[in-house]
Amino acid sequence: MKLMKVEEALQLFLKHVKIKETEIEYVSLNEALHRVLGEDIISPTDLPPFDRAAMDGFAVKSTDTFGASELSPVELKIIGESEIGRPFKGVLESGCAVRIDTGAKIPDGADAVVPKEYTKEFDDRVLIFKSVVPFENTAKKGEDVKRGEIILHKGKILEPYDIALLKALGISQVPVKKKPKIAVFSIGNELIEEFNPKLLEEGKIVDTNRIMICSLIKENGGECIDFGIIPDDSNEIRNALIKSTNFADIICTIGGISIGKRDFVAKVVNEIGTLIVRGVAIQPGKPVSLGVINGKPVVCLPGFPVSAFIAYCLFVKPLIFKMLGIKREYQMTVKGKLSRRLPGRLGRRVFVRVKLKTRDGDIIVEPLKTSGAGVLSSLCKADGILIIPENLEGFEKGFDVDVITLKDFHE
Amino acid sequence: MKLMKVEEALQLFLKHVKIKETEIEYVSLNEALHRVLGEDIISPTDLPPFDRAAMDGFAVKSTDTFGASELSPVELKIIGESEIGRPFKGVLESGCAVRIDTGAKIPDGADAVVPKEYTKEFDDRVLIFKSVVPFENTAKKGEDVKRGEIILHKGKILEPYDIALLKALGISQVPVKKKPKIAVFSIGNELIEEFNPKLLEEGKIVDTNRIMICSLIKENGGECIDFGIIPDDSNEIRNALIKSTNFADIICTIGGISIGKRDFVAKVVNEIGTLIVRGVAIQPGKPVSLGVINGKPVVCLPGFPVSAFIAYCLFVKPLIFKMLGIKREYQMTVKGKLSRRLPGRLGRRVFVRVKLKTRDGDIIVEPLKTSGAGVLSSLCKADGILIIPENLEGFEKGFDVDVITLKDFHE
Repeated sequence: MKLMKVEEALQLFLKHVKIKETEIEYVSLNEALHRVLGEDIISPTDLPPFDRAAMDGFAVKSTDTFGASELSPVELKIIGESEIGRPFKGVLESGCAVRIDTGAKIPDGADAVVPKEYTKEFDDRVLIFKSVVPFENTAKKGEDVKRGEIILHKGKILEPYDIALLKALGISQVPVKKKPKIAVFSIGNELIEEFNPKLLEEGKIVDTNRIMICSLIKENGGECIDFGIIPDDSNEIRNALIKSTNFADIICTIGGISIGKRDFVAKVVNEIGTLIVRGVAIQPGKPVSLGVINGKPVVCLPGFPVSAFIAYCLFVKPLIFKMLGIKREYQMTVKGKLSRRLPGRLGRRVFVRVKLKTRDGDIIVEPLKTSGAGVLSSLCKADGILIIPENLEGFEKGFDVDVITLKDFHE
Repeated sequence: MKLMKVEEALQLFLKHVKIKETEIEYVSLNEALHRVLGEDIISPTDLPPFDRAAMDGFAVKSTDTFGASELSPVELKIIGESEIGRPFKGVLESGCAVRIDTGAKIPDGADAVVPKEYTKEFDDRVLIFKSVVPFENTAKKGEDVKRGEIILHKGKILEPYDIALLKALGISQVPVKKKPKIAVFSIGNELIEEFNPKLLEEGKIVDTNRIMICSLIKENGGECIDFGIIPDDSNEIRNALIKSTNFADIICTIGGISIGKRDFVAKVVNEIGTLIVRGVAIQPGKPVSLGVINGKPVVCLPGFPVSAFIAYCLFVKPLIFKMLGIKREYQMTVKGKLSRRLPGRLGRRVFVRVKLKTRDGDIIVEPLKTSGAGVLSSLCKADGILIIPENLEGFEKGFDVDVITLKDFHE
């Protein structure tokens, strides 16, 4: 059976499920860090709201200073002061100067500031030793932000400086995207919730996938609805799936999806909804399946931890980002030299976990030896993911390769 | 006056203040995401705890299958089943096979698994159509994690897969570093807490730096103690500084540090403690000053928003990381082509805000035009930071440059 490529699978999936962006809710500035902006923010005001001094010194008419130099200074009359919170009220005439602080309002009539170090005061007179051009050493009204300008675009993840800018404009309640709700459940009779040496000896396995996937969802800006562990039982799986579609925007199952006698999930999805994609041409993660129940997207992740991780990043993360309206324009990669020959697998996109090391200023890309999809610790040891495309037999030793840092891959 | 380089300044600073790592506290797995691990985690157990099947099929003695092929299968006797949670109890003898599920325990005496698709069952017999070598299609005991192995190192920021691995090993209370406490206060008569058009017209400025710096501290794993706005008054600044050293691990002031008549902070620091660095050879951010009061590090950030941001990333973030025991081995950068000539400034390390665009598959690095340190919005528009070293006059158009993504720069 020819498996679909990642892009084909995702495209087909998105044709069958209509992904709607979540609604907007308002949060305070203190809660807004790393939330996703829900609408364009248009500045209600100019910042700064007037021309202001960019240096301590004297506000002048620039034309008055033309020709001023070290040897032949220009003399002006000091007629007042402009301080922050206490602007000079009058109008500056030719032949005059106003003492001014950094950030203070440029008096009407003045158009430049001579820095203090190029001046010398005598009583109510000041000598100017350097000419200035119009607007020199001033910050123009609207230089930072212009009134009516879109200052932050919908879909932006709010960073510390964005929050500062919102505060500068008096926006204290920020419109952000509601977090998409993702129902998560693990499937398998072998799974237990807590570590228990006796049960492990019998072959039971601690369910580690659910806490991993829930943490990833949290990182990606979603909200996890934890449905716990469901046994290998069609009825129970059916009930959980139907119930979850009432609460969640996305349903994410883990396990019970490889070809085998305990492969219940795909059948149940197809019975109460539509199974759209059954397996994708990736390694690890091949069994990942995509479906729709009651109009809600269902992503069935494989149970091997590394498979679950890769399939989550390829098929759940994009849904969350779409619901949040996040756009990613480019993928950041790190270029490095491959430390050894790395075979690919024709027809499969292979995701290799690698370590990054620096040697003589070069970045060396070292594929991890343990590559089984069951080896969770290989993710903990990795720095990045190297993708071998489906049409390549692999990379030779010393080849320049692009690595996605592991953090970029999942965040 | 010759200003110190960033590295010199930081080194001198760290010689005068003894930065101690914070203590350990225990948190549950659900609270551990992105916390910093406080000690090496040594695995108390093997994972998997026994050899297990990596495929559905039949557990066999590999020697029994030698020579088996499509045309001349080997016939074995089925003596039982091994399921997850219900392992086969007996010992497998030569000539026998045990039906086995993926993940189930390999019976004593067996050393490999023949996948189901290469077998055919007749009553209590099975035909094997393919030979297997020892350990084929099995996951060895300890393959994921070996007992006694350090699985996660002190100083690691805990990611979703790390939390999953901790869960797999039965570690439910995680030793993490306590968050360093950073006292933050803004200094300046011009500052107001809330947006107010009338006050802004008079030249007052909304204090946006404090929420930006507090958000950065939160991002970097610290805890912010917000001391609010302090006026330009030596007594009030003195009191706030002394008080803050009782609560905080690091003291971070913003503003009141440029050379000018309202330059109070450096004087007060030097009066009640020691001023170690007065200004650093960077642009923007030059006035940043470093001192010590009662053994606590004091970082005095400049008041211009972009200066405050850069100086924070260079001098506060490293202190927080040191207290948390975080090690960063390499700086991730994005290579791109410069869209226009970019002048530097000899003797200063210049931090240029840039946009990253893709054109015909190339990444184009476009310096933002507004470069004033007061222009907060330039940070909101930027994708990255391009550093022009102090010994370069700048970069030519088309030059290949390394850009640090803005997120990497502050996180």
